[in-house]
Amino acid sequence: MHAVVPYRVADPKTRLAPVLSPAERGTLSRAMLADVLDAVAATGHETTVLATEPLAVPGDTTHTVRVDDRPLTPAVDAVLAEHAGPDSPVAVVMADLALATPDALSGLFAADGEVVFAPGRGGGTNALVSRRPDFRTDYHGASYRDHRRGCERLGVSPTTVDSYRLGTDVDDPADLVEVLLHAPTDGRTRQFLAERFTLATGEGRVSVDRRE
Amino acid sequence: MHAVVPYRVADPKTRLAPVLSPAERGTLSRAMLADVLDAVAATGHETTVLATEPLAVPGDTTHTVRVDDRPLTPAVDAVLAEHAGPDSPVAVVMADLALATPDALSGLFAADGEVVFAPGRGGGTNALVSRRPDFRTDYHGASYRDHRRGCERLGVSPTTVDSYRLGTDVDDPADLVEVLLHAPTDGRTRQFLAERFTLATGEGRVSVDRRE
Repeated sequence: MHAVVPYRVADPKTRLAPVLSPAERGTLSRAMLADVLDAVAATGHETTVLATEPLAVPGDTTHTVRVDDRPLTPAVDAVLAEHAGPDSPVAVVMADLALATPDALSGLFAADGEVVFAPGRGGGTNALVSRRPDFRTDYHGASYRDHRRGCERLGVSPTTVDSYRLGTDVDDPADLVEVLLHAPTDGRTRQFLAERFTLATGEGRVSVDRRE
Repeated sequence: MHAVVPYRVADPKTRLAPVLSPAERGTLSRAMLADVLDAVAATGHETTVLATEPLAVPGDTTHTVRVDDRPLTPAVDAVLAEHAGPDSPVAVVMADLALATPDALSGLFAADGEVVFAPGRGGGTNALVSRRPDFRTDYHGASYRDHRRGCERLGVSPTTVDSYRLGTDVDDPADLVEVLLHAPTDGRTRQFLAERFTLATGEGRVSVDRRE
């Protein structure tokens, strides 16, 4: 399995601007990338960081950096077109899956199917595996629906893996709750956020408060 | 396994009031209950609906109704105190898990551990299994955190199952997206909502629009 982790270097995690400064968003984003790379490395697969510009990848794992300044969809599609096939599966794993563990990723990588999806909250496709040379992505909008339609056009019955860890990406302030509760306790992401936020409980779902 | 599905009869799903009328919220809530009961029944386990008042339970499954007009926590705790033990596990499954499937529930029921949790979005505990006579619940606030602390006090190492389907409960308008994309296509809940809403795609996560 060849795992690709796309990463946009400039101005990351803009939807977290209400609760995090630009510098903090950068640090959080790189912490999540490093944690995801660690989790992928622990499954024993080779990883490429598909970055919009050259970067010093954080963490201690070994990986290749491929620079492609295009938007997510064409950049990922170029990798799939070059590498994906029946004997050369390619996994695409989003860099903000702060709850990902080696076990959760292994479940995805080991799932049968020409195309395998780990859906994300709000219509996203947080991770996928393709064993087809002709499967292409469409990350705009309800990508999970569109990716299923793409499979239909190819005559492929996609597999969906059922994982809360892979289904949780970190985009909005409400997602920080998920990190504080469920991310690996030794991960950089949880440590970074736990230093700055506590859980706020009241009516309905829990939110986060800045520490004093 | 004895499965308990708590259900509050009066004024259900108030957080959906911005998008659904009171009558629609009642219909949706009962559709979700019926779908959850179907999914539990398909796993072959005995089910009790723990209702706040007598009700005609929708659907075709066989079940017991137990009426307890107290809030969720004491009503569930009474069942656990009476029935849960090493040889008589009790599952507590929320009635609004519209994405639940027999497979996802079987994964929970089959998991090892004295206490097993399926965490839900925003700090919830969407489903659990207890094989301890002394484990008690606390559904207010960040129940997942509080349930883990309760286990700690008992010297129990809880198990957590990783399921997007069980992790998704339907409380807020954003959750309707999850039903439209991921709930079983033959379920009452998805059919009810698909008649009334379509996906709305734009920037960020997908939302729903009323059909014209």
